[in-house]
Amino acid sequence: MKNLNSLGLRYIDSELSVLDQTLLPGEERWLVMRNVEDMIEAIQRLAVRGAPLIGVAAAMSLADAWKKGTAKGEGWKRAALALREARPTAVNLMAAMDRMLAAGEAKSLETAEEIFLEDVRLCDAMAERGAALVKDGENILTHCNTGGLATVGVGTALGVIRKAHEQGKKIHVYVDETRPLLQGARLTAWELGKLGIPYTLICDNMAGALMAQKKIQRIFVGADRVTARGDAANKIGTYSVAVLAHYHKIPFYIVAPETTLDRTMESGTQIPIEERKASEVRGERSPKDAPVWNPAFDVTPRELITNIITDKTLL
Amino acid sequence: MKNLNSLGLRYIDSELSVLDQTLLPGEERWLVMRNVEDMIEAIQRLAVRGAPLIGVAAAMSLADAWKKGTAKGEGWKRAALALREARPTAVNLMAAMDRMLAAGEAKSLETAEEIFLEDVRLCDAMAERGAALVKDGENILTHCNTGGLATVGVGTALGVIRKAHEQGKKIHVYVDETRPLLQGARLTAWELGKLGIPYTLICDNMAGALMAQKKIQRIFVGADRVTARGDAANKIGTYSVAVLAHYHKIPFYIVAPETTLDRTMESGTQIPIEERKASEVRGERSPKDAPVWNPAFDVTPRELITNIITDKTLL
Repeated sequence: MKNLNSLGLRYIDSELSVLDQTLLPGEERWLVMRNVEDMIEAIQRLAVRGAPLIGVAAAMSLADAWKKGTAKGEGWKRAALALREARPTAVNLMAAMDRMLAAGEAKSLETAEEIFLEDVRLCDAMAERGAALVKDGENILTHCNTGGLATVGVGTALGVIRKAHEQGKKIHVYVDETRPLLQGARLTAWELGKLGIPYTLICDNMAGALMAQKKIQRIFVGADRVTARGDAANKIGTYSVAVLAHYHKIPFYIVAPETTLDRTMESGTQIPIEERKASEVRGERSPKDAPVWNPAFDVTPRELITNIITDKTLL
Repeated sequence: MKNLNSLGLRYIDSELSVLDQTLLPGEERWLVMRNVEDMIEAIQRLAVRGAPLIGVAAAMSLADAWKKGTAKGEGWKRAALALREARPTAVNLMAAMDRMLAAGEAKSLETAEEIFLEDVRLCDAMAERGAALVKDGENILTHCNTGGLATVGVGTALGVIRKAHEQGKKIHVYVDETRPLLQGARLTAWELGKLGIPYTLICDNMAGALMAQKKIQRIFVGADRVTARGDAANKIGTYSVAVLAHYHKIPFYIVAPETTLDRTMESGTQIPIEERKASEVRGERSPKDAPVWNPAFDVTPRELITNIITDKTLL
């Protein structure tokens, strides 16, 4: 496999490493992934996150294990299935593993490389299609992180924003901080700063007030799974943004590659939603025994989505 | 003035002190208020917060200064005006200072005591009226902190919830953590725990997903100012909750004493909204130079409010 390099994932001289996204933006620490177990742990604790990136990273890990001889035959299949189950909601991971399994272990390296390079192309295609919708001077709201850290390309929703900026459109981005894990405040703010795109960070609960003041013209978010009828699971809080957008008549777009579509599932109510630890919500400031509900995702029904922008079509 | 005691404010043996609410729930530290300047600082850094409590605390501070002889004549009036301007949005503070000024310095002690004792009665009246709306088995959502810490009585919205619980109704409270300063996670969770009322803490962005799952039957929040037409300023995020409630057809109530009504102002768009420091939103995790928008309040128009529960009427 040739050297491959993205903002959050590297395969260089046969060494696979990931940027520990839990430490950003304070520290940029790369972690060497010695084996499939390392990658599963990195995915589960969100060192590696973002639906498209998780799929690519799992494929690279499986290929790397095959190359090193640590996963062969039945062991290789078991490793693929273990990676496939690392997190339950995003379908890209499942799609990537199914594709590796269908291609077979002997094609591990070329299939993983193909998945990596394809994600870059998918991002470019979505960015192009989405940016065409953005008008000069618009303020855009986004939620969570959907950029170079969430994919191995320019990103999904954030790729659209980046492309519109590169096209010379004067845009301003409002970034939901995205509690509890602050992917917006930590990762999207960091990426936008690096790209020189003007932005303002807000708490998630301020988005409605911004909309009421007519300060948001368009909303782009990503997705972790889109069902056959077009319901979309995405980071918790996306549904609230969609309802607010609907009330204020602001166009609300999901940006996701075809690999995020799950045509085997009709309705969003069928999507399994990962629930995470109470400590993520409690932090340092709540009563230590505070009971918590902490779903990682919610589902936005098709009716609240203006359009779904994929690499191939506007659904 | 006789000894007066509430969850967050004490006047005992002629010493005025406040519970530093910025340290809760980790530490319960009482701060002696030596003079009006101490109180202004405590109000501005939110050691003392909650619209009704701020009004009472300012009156007590002004009376205490008069008693100690540190504010007399013109100095007393200047102190009243300085307290009145400590924070711009909540009208209770202004109403309390106007009342002190109208009564005159010689009546400092009895007026302040009257304002304190009246707040206790107002809370009881609101709690009674609001609790009558709650049905057995309901799940109730609330935002920010509106309990014993926000008033010198049982609270406004949280007073309603407490009363319903004391009436034996089986209720469950969902508590918005209320970013950026986490009054829900820190203060409301702490109060509910002390009162033995079952609750679940959520991030603000999870409320929509809860409503979509039909897990919220009723919503009670407080207010910092209610205009003549019934628009209500309250903690940032309240407007988003109101829009979500409207979309899901869930009754949404403002609970506020008559002292929160500002009949001189017609529309909520006229209410001055305090903007606070960027560092409150940035915390430790965002880029240090991240541009931020941090309004402390937003305005919910009358159309989105099912009813306003005051101590006298349902508006």
